[in-house]
Formats: sequence, structure tokens, C-alpha cells
Amino acid sequence: MTDYNKHDAEILVAFGLRMREFRQNKGLSQEELAEITDLHRTYIGSAERGERNVSLINIARIAKALDVPVSSLIEDK
Amino acid sequence: MTDYNKHDAEILVAFGLRMREFRQNKGLSQEELAEITDLHRTYIGSAERGERNVSLINIARIAKALDVPVSSLIEDK
Repeated sequence: MTDYNKHDAEILVAFGLRMREFRQNKGLSQEELAEITDLHRTYIGSAERGERNVSLINIARIAKALDVPVSSLIEDK
Repeated sequence: MTDYNKHDAEILVAFGLRMREFRQNKGLSQEELAEITDLHRTYIGSAERGERNVSLINIARIAKALDVPVSSLIEDK
């Protein structure tokens, strides 16, 4: 895992927590979300732990799979 | 430039257009935004043309520099 500075790490962690919350609210496992988004299950797991600097396209793909607006996944600081 | 599928490309182009609009509204040149965000000027230019799959940390950095919420940079489809 790349080391991020504290502020950047907080952004990724906040994203991951929201992603996990929306996934669980939708009753999906990480495996199921991985299948829907065509991303790897380990990628889903590490994104949820805030270990991935997720790109715009993957953010959009995840939001679509979770039926939430992109903006709901991103916390403004 | 990587080839993206049509939907993904639209997401990147929409992001770039908003980014440019907010930058111009703020009266900043690409060079000035590059300096504030500590990103390269050519990166700013290609992001504005929708040629970059911008990462969450850079999205947050750009939004902060432009004084806009991250969500305002991202169009939900």
C-alpha cells in the first residue's frame, strides 16, 4: 500500500467507509459487488479499507452498482 | 491516451468541462491551478480535456483549490 499523507488518507478512508455502508445497505457481499462492477474482489476489499486511490471511472462504476449518486460516496472536507 | 468506452469517456469529459468552468470562474490559469494543486500543468490540461481518469485524491485536491465541493465536479448519470 502506498503511503498517503494524513489528509489524503482520510479522504480514502471516508470513501471506503461509505462504500461499505452502501454495499451492506444494499445487501451485497464484496464478491457480488465485485461481479457487478467487474472489479476484483480484493480491489473492493482494499477500497473499503481506504487503501485505494480509486479513480473517477471506478467511483462511477461503484456508485452505479450501489444505486447511489457519486456525490454520496465522497465526503467533502 | 487510454481508450475508454463511451460511457466512461463521457464521465471524464463531463468532469473536465466542470473543472475548466470552475477554474475559469475563479480566474485561474491552468498554470496557476497546477501550482496550487502541486500537479503538472500538462496534467491539468489533459484532465480538462477528459483524457485523465483522475483519482480521488487529485479530485479532492482540485476541488479544494477551486473552492467547490467535490460533488460539484462530478456529474451523476
